Amino acid sequence: MHTNSAAVTDTIRNGVDSETMFATLDLIKAQPELARFQFRVSNRWIDGAHNRSTIKGFYAAGGEDTTRTEAFELDAGEPAILLGSDTGPNPAEYLLHALAACLTTSIVYVAAARKVELTSVESTLTGDMDVRGALGVDEKPRNGFERIRVSFRVTGHASEEKLREIVERARNRSAVYDMVTNGVHVVLDATTD
Amino acid sequence: MHTNSAAVTDTIRNGVDSETMFATLDLIKAQPELARFQFRVSNRWIDGAHNRSTIKGFYAAGGEDTTRTEAFELDAGEPAILLGSDTGPNPAEYLLHALAACLTTSIVYVAAARKVELTSVESTLTGDMDVRGALGVDEKPRNGFERIRVSFRVTGHASEEKLREIVERARNRSAVYDMVTNGVHVVLDATTD
Repeated sequence: MHTNSAAVTDTIRNGVDSETMFATLDLIKAQPELARFQFRVSNRWIDGAHNRSTIKGFYAAGGEDTTRTEAFELDAGEPAILLGSDTGPNPAEYLLHALAACLTTSIVYVAAARKVELTSVESTLTGDMDVRGALGVDEKPRNGFERIRVSFRVTGHASEEKLREIVERARNRSAVYDMVTNGVHVVLDATTD
Repeated sequence: MHTNSAAVTDTIRNGVDSETMFATLDLIKAQPELARFQFRVSNRWIDGAHNRSTIKGFYAAGGEDTTRTEAFELDAGEPAILLGSDTGPNPAEYLLHALAACLTTSIVYVAAARKVELTSVESTLTGDMDVRGALGVDEKPRNGFERIRVSFRVTGHASEEKLREIVERARNRSAVYDMVTNGVHVVLDATTD
């Protein structure tokens, strides 16, 4: 499609092919049924606090994805003080990572769409928890984090105002930020044989 | 403390040292200030949809943890259809993993506390999303999953009724289940230099 290398270079911004991005957006506007996605995880207990998720297949744009050749495997664990042996980050840390990753990707994509070249995106997240809730010692504290603090440092070739607008737009579009702040309906069933 | 190997074996159930578990619960009941934990993640953008979290330090039981010798590193990405190159699971998949891992560990710990030996815990999770929300194409669909379905298969040396009680209690105590279903207050700030 490209007639010279300058054109190719021009379409990649922040590592995102913005030409493909706009083509995807146009396609989904024209055929909204292509916007239906389903992501999946399979998890298996190994021992104690150690369990492992396998992630590969997903449904997207009218069909089952076939582009992933390898499955991702993620190991979870707990530190010693929570009775594990550090076989991986703990589930609450994975939730913080999910939030950090989604906000970061949203910032990078929004910047690409707005033709802003970023030079760095860094963040630190903290979650405060009174573990009496999850341990069942006291009914008052909630099980999860009381609050999460997210601090971003974003630099790029744009004014401070523009960069702040990008962070704000990214927050308003992030899938995980929406889920973590607003909650999601979870349907759980169990079989025992 | 143990005078014979039978006593040592007896305290480990499902890979969890239940003697240590009950000692921890007693300690936290006696000194509730020890229940204050803080978990943390640092994330750095690499390129496009690729970013990486580093997870090591946390605050627990009155002090900064010093038992973790190595940091965990988690790479996030997006598949091609979402403009990435599969450098890792995507953020929404990480959220499903966090939920699977937390429910699984909760099931294993509750079973250990109730002297139930489990033989397997497996789960599959699916999250349905209309990506028009996150892509900013349409205001109506939310950004995140419309719903999450969790299917557990739990087997062990106990009646079906007992195993179902354990799953129910675990759901009621899981930190990530609480956060994903009820939401968490997130405070976000950004600097741009």
